[in-house]
This record gives sequence, C-alpha cells and structure tokens, in this order.
Amino acid sequence: MNIQSHKTPERVLMGPGPSNAHPEVLKAMSKQAVGHLDPSFLELMNEIRELLRYVFQTKNDKTFAVSGPGTLGMESCLVNLVEPGEKIVICQNGFFAGRMKAIIEQAGGIPVMVHDDWGTKISPEKLEDALKKNPDVKVVAFVHAETSTGVLSDAKTLSEIAHKNNCVVLADTVTSLGGSPLYVDEWNIDASYSGSQKCLSATAGLSPVTFGERAVEKIKNRKTKVQSWFMDLNTIWTYWQSETKRSYHHTAPINSFYGLHEALVLKKEEGLENSWNRHTNNSKKLCESLEGIGLKPFVNEEYRLPQLVSVGVPEGIDEAEVRKYALEKHNLEIGAGLGDLAGKIWRVGLMGYSSNQQNIDLCVKVFEEAINAQKK
Amino acid sequence: MNIQSHKTPERVLMGPGPSNAHPEVLKAMSKQAVGHLDPSFLELMNEIRELLRYVFQTKNDKTFAVSGPGTLGMESCLVNLVEPGEKIVICQNGFFAGRMKAIIEQAGGIPVMVHDDWGTKISPEKLEDALKKNPDVKVVAFVHAETSTGVLSDAKTLSEIAHKNNCVVLADTVTSLGGSPLYVDEWNIDASYSGSQKCLSATAGLSPVTFGERAVEKIKNRKTKVQSWFMDLNTIWTYWQSETKRSYHHTAPINSFYGLHEALVLKKEEGLENSWNRHTNNSKKLCESLEGIGLKPFVNEEYRLPQLVSVGVPEGIDEAEVRKYALEKHNLEIGAGLGDLAGKIWRVGLMGYSSNQQNIDLCVKVFEEAINAQKK
Repeated sequence: MNIQSHKTPERVLMGPGPSNAHPEVLKAMSKQAVGHLDPSFLELMNEIRELLRYVFQTKNDKTFAVSGPGTLGMESCLVNLVEPGEKIVICQNGFFAGRMKAIIEQAGGIPVMVHDDWGTKISPEKLEDALKKNPDVKVVAFVHAETSTGVLSDAKTLSEIAHKNNCVVLADTVTSLGGSPLYVDEWNIDASYSGSQKCLSATAGLSPVTFGERAVEKIKNRKTKVQSWFMDLNTIWTYWQSETKRSYHHTAPINSFYGLHEALVLKKEEGLENSWNRHTNNSKKLCESLEGIGLKPFVNEEYRLPQLVSVGVPEGIDEAEVRKYALEKHNLEIGAGLGDLAGKIWRVGLMGYSSNQQNIDLCVKVFEEAINAQKK
Repeated sequence: MNIQSHKTPERVLMGPGPSNAHPEVLKAMSKQAVGHLDPSFLELMNEIRELLRYVFQTKNDKTFAVSGPGTLGMESCLVNLVEPGEKIVICQNGFFAGRMKAIIEQAGGIPVMVHDDWGTKISPEKLEDALKKNPDVKVVAFVHAETSTGVLSDAKTLSEIAHKNNCVVLADTVTSLGGSPLYVDEWNIDASYSGSQKCLSATAGLSPVTFGERAVEKIKNRKTKVQSWFMDLNTIWTYWQSETKRSYHHTAPINSFYGLHEALVLKKEEGLENSWNRHTNNSKKLCESLEGIGLKPFVNEEYRLPQLVSVGVPEGIDEAEVRKYALEKHNLEIGAGLGDLAGKIWRVGLMGYSSNQQNIDLCVKVFEEAINAQKK
C-alpha cells in the first residue's frame, strides 16, 4: 500500500451541489476544535440556532442542525412525523420525493404518492384531490426546490391546501434555503430539512432542520417511539436546548459547525433578500447567455429554479462528453440528468458562493467550446 | 441579532475526546471540495477504505466510514446486526454500553446486560455465564476501550467466548482504534465502529466501521428490513463499493473525508505499532509524573487504558474548580467523571496528536497549580 496525501483538484462546482464553499468558511473550519462541551462551543451552538432561524425565517425554538448529511435530515424529519402504519402524502415531481418514499416505506409508513411530470411544478389541484381521497392522512411532504430537475414549487399554496385538510407540512428545502424566498412561519411550514452545502456555501455534512408547534405536537402525541435513538427529536433536542438543560447526545462534528456558523454569518451580512436577488439575477444572466449560444433552458420560466438551471441537450450532442470536457479541460463540474432525464439535460448550479458572474462566463464559454468540439 | 464570526479559543484538548487534530489534517480539510461523484473523490473513498483496513488490521471488504458521529456508527452496527425481537448480550463496565442498550431498546431489540463495576475490565467469566443462560443469543457487544472510565478490556478473549457460543461479535473501538493494539481479523471481531476524533487525530463527525463475513451473513439472513434507510448496510454499501457499481446514497461530507484521509496517511507513516507504543509510553510518563505530585491513577495498571487516564480526586479538592482553572488559566481541557464517578475522577486524554511530552508537562503543571490554589 503506497497511499500519499491526497492531491485535491481545484474544481469550479456548478453541478447540483455541493457548491464551492466560501473561503472564509474553509478558514473557519481549519481552526483547532474545542471540546463539544466547552462553554464557547455551547455559545456557538446557540448562535447557529439563532442564525438558522433567520435563514428559515422562523421563530421556531426547535431549529438546529442534524449532525449528518441532508439525507439524514430528511429521514430524521420523516421518522419523527410519521409512525409505522401511518399514511403520508408525498408530492413527487423529481428524484428526491422518491427518496422520501423509500425512507418511509423502510420505516413502516405508507406513502401515498401524488405524481407530476419531472420538470414541471407540483400541482396544487392534484394534492387537493389526493387529500380528499385520503382523509386519514395527517402529513404532507413535498420538495420546495427539486434539484433533480430545476423546478421551484409553490410551497405557500401547497402548505395552505395541506392545512385546510388538517395535515402537518414537511418541506424539503435542501436547495432553496438561502437561495430562494422561503418563509417558514408565514407559509405555515411545520417542519423542514435542508443541507449545508448548497446555497448556504458551507461544506457538505450537516442538515439544518426546523420543527414548529404543530409538528412538535404531532410528535408528542405519537403512540410509538421513534425507532432510531440517534434521530429521535426527544433525545437530540436535549443536546441543543438552552445551556442549563443541555445533556450529552453525541460528539458534534465541531469543525463542520465552525464552517456552518461562518457561512450563516456571511449570509446575514449579505442579507437574505440580497442573496435571493443575487441568485435570481445570475440565473437570468446565465439563461440569456446560454440562449445566445443556442442552448435552451429545459424548465418553463414561470417555475424555473434560479440556483439550478436545467439545460436541454441539443440533438446529436453527447452530453457526457461535454461534462467530461468541462471537467478535464477546465476543472468545471456540471451535473447530468437523472432518471428519465438522463442524457436529455445538463444541470448547472449557481448556488451560494458559486453564483457569480465569473462562473457564468466560464460556464458559457466551456459549453460553447465543448459543443463546437463535437461538431467538428 | 448581532452575531459575528466566531472567536475560537485555542485549547489543548486532554479530555475524553475530541483530541486536537493534526495540523496537516486541518490543512487538508480547508481545501475546496470536489463534487461527491468526482473521479478524484471516488479514488479518495477507495483509499480511505484501504487505509481503514490497515488501522483495523482487517481484510474486510466492507470497511468504510459512516457519514456521522461515532454514535451513528454505533446505531448503524446495532440495527443491522440485531432484528426487532432479537436478544443481544451487552457487556457493561461504563457509560457507552449503556448507550448501546438505549439504542437497542428503542429499535425493538432485547438487551441482556452483563454488568461489571465501572473502572474494572469486562469479566470473561460473566460473559460465558450469560451466554450459557441465554443460548438463543446470537450477538455479543462490548466496548474495547471504555472512555468513561479509562479501562481496556480483553477483546480477544471476549471474542473467543462469544464465538464458542455461536455469536457474532460487535466491538466498540471508538477510543482504541489507532491507540491500542487491535487486530480485527486475528481476534475474529465480526463488526466494529469507531470515531474519527480520538486516536486517529481527525476531526469529529465520521465513524469508521468494518463488517466481516459472519456479520454480513447475519445481515443477509435477516427476516425483516433494517428500519432505517440511511443506516441500512445494503443501501450505504452501494455508495462505497468499487467504482463501477457505485450508486448515489447521500452527499458525503467531502471536507471531513479529506481530513480523515490525511489522518490515516499520517498514521500509516508513523506506523500503527509505533503509534500504539507512543500511547503506552506517554501514558506511563504521565502516570509517573502525576504520582510524583501525589495524584493516583484510578484504574488498576493491568487494564489501564493508555490514551485515557482516570485520576482520583484527592479528599477535599473540588474537582470542577480544577477543570475550570485549567480551562480558564491555561486553555487546557480535562474531562470530568460520569455517572457514579462524577466528582471522584478526572479523565485525562492522551490521544493521537495530543499524546506528546509537551502536553504531559503542561497537564502535570496545571494540576499542581490548581490543587495548590485550593489548599491555600
């Protein structure tokens, strides 16, 4: 075995995530850790809670970061909110609602799927129909910003319909948090999970979550215990609540928390609305420039997600070759299509720190070069 | 809200973990991430598997890192190996076997506890008795190095007894891995989980695990699915196996993987046996110096854990005041006792990068100062 220190290539990350972390985040992460019970670390945790409440636009007390990737945040929300044998309506218009389905089935819940075509937004009418047909359903879940297609759904309207039908709402905000308008309290979203590595510009590995009163009430009234000790909100919460009551749950990924804290401070300094506007404006610029070289955004402008633009692959072009060219010649990562959209679209991320003019210019230049290279 | 970038104090970490990370690890972690499907990242994952096989001293194919803290690694091992309704014998001589019990109970398994006093090693005879009384048990779990007391148990003998009784063996090696002799294959340990932040000198947040043939066989023959999608070995393994078969599971905490990789390269360069010897020698030096100022190690030398030394609190000394003095005056973290041992012991860690002469000298000096300050 002759394994050396890893030579990390310097990529520009314009795929579906992770995006490039802010350099100040990387600096914060490279400090020596303190102990996970150190007074300064407990203060940091409290500040992370407060900063997360700001980006989620919520007053929810139970707002914190799960010590694992977004998928663990997803599972944590689902298995707390849905008991084995209980139904949950899941609106699916892309890959990640399918992940919710897999998790719920494995945990013994019963997913009731409401399907829309990949690349379109979730239909409020279909959700309404499904809830009328399934009056025993108590939880509705959907993906706010579908990373697999580049679609932003109308979380506010979906939430209204769910509440009219006495359901608790769970929203996946992995790709929307920090990049698109999201008002957890105003829209009555009862629970949500996100990721650290997309529009927040921290590194991958943490999942910010928030639980409102209706969600907490539903969890309190469970007839069965959550099957997972690590994911049980009742135990994890003992670690995150105010200093006097705090008790040991696990050793936090301290350096990752440093990074998340700094990413959130930077977001606060930029201003949440400014960040949303930056993502919107850069997306428009990218789409215009791509149209200028003959490429077409795949998703209807009405519900096109700014931070992830799906681009149609022109006839006769090998999409994988274009990505390979971008990575090998320009250290530029662009995403592939998933499922039925494999081979039909590219996915171009403009998330967080990666959403800037320089990246737009690079991306357009590389697309043009790579496609021309195939035409020769 | 006026939250600024976090001012991180520079601590010397000589508690029960995390220990100080190696500076090269922090440097590796502060590099920009690549995508989690980048060819260079897949190569890094393969190298991590190979390096982990070295530190675990195993040829097990299924050797990788769970993307979460040691507690998630613990739960991942337990819920894969034990089905709801199944019994598991757990040897308890400290805090962390109690954590195993809590996890198993919540997952629907039936723990059969074998108790030894905190501060003593696990008794092979008691395990043998318990297995004779419970011939239906198929899994035995124990903590190799108990971080709550500073005791090293005889994993080889415990494993032999378990196998004589047709059980699969699960060993918690969170604090032993890289610091004390551990031979997963030679000792027939069938499954094990560890942590990144102790004797490996990486940062907290990852849990190296290994599963041998008997463990994999037991998991294959389950009558029920693992209730957790995220922790299911069958799904997580699709992400870690060789490149051609790899499929998306979750977005890996890429920067943490950079850190772990570098930590493992450094361990390989030092040599595993050299690292074990360093931990043993420094522990001896620390104990001698502490005895020189009138302090006594709490644990019998025969099974004293080198990387975590429990020190008895002298009559009339306020142990919390000593820790506070160390932290506030010298930025030195020392651990408190847990459970019945709270107030009776300090826990002094000499783990990984933190196990060096300078730290020994500092620790002894600070103990002397802090205790004298109370005598005045």
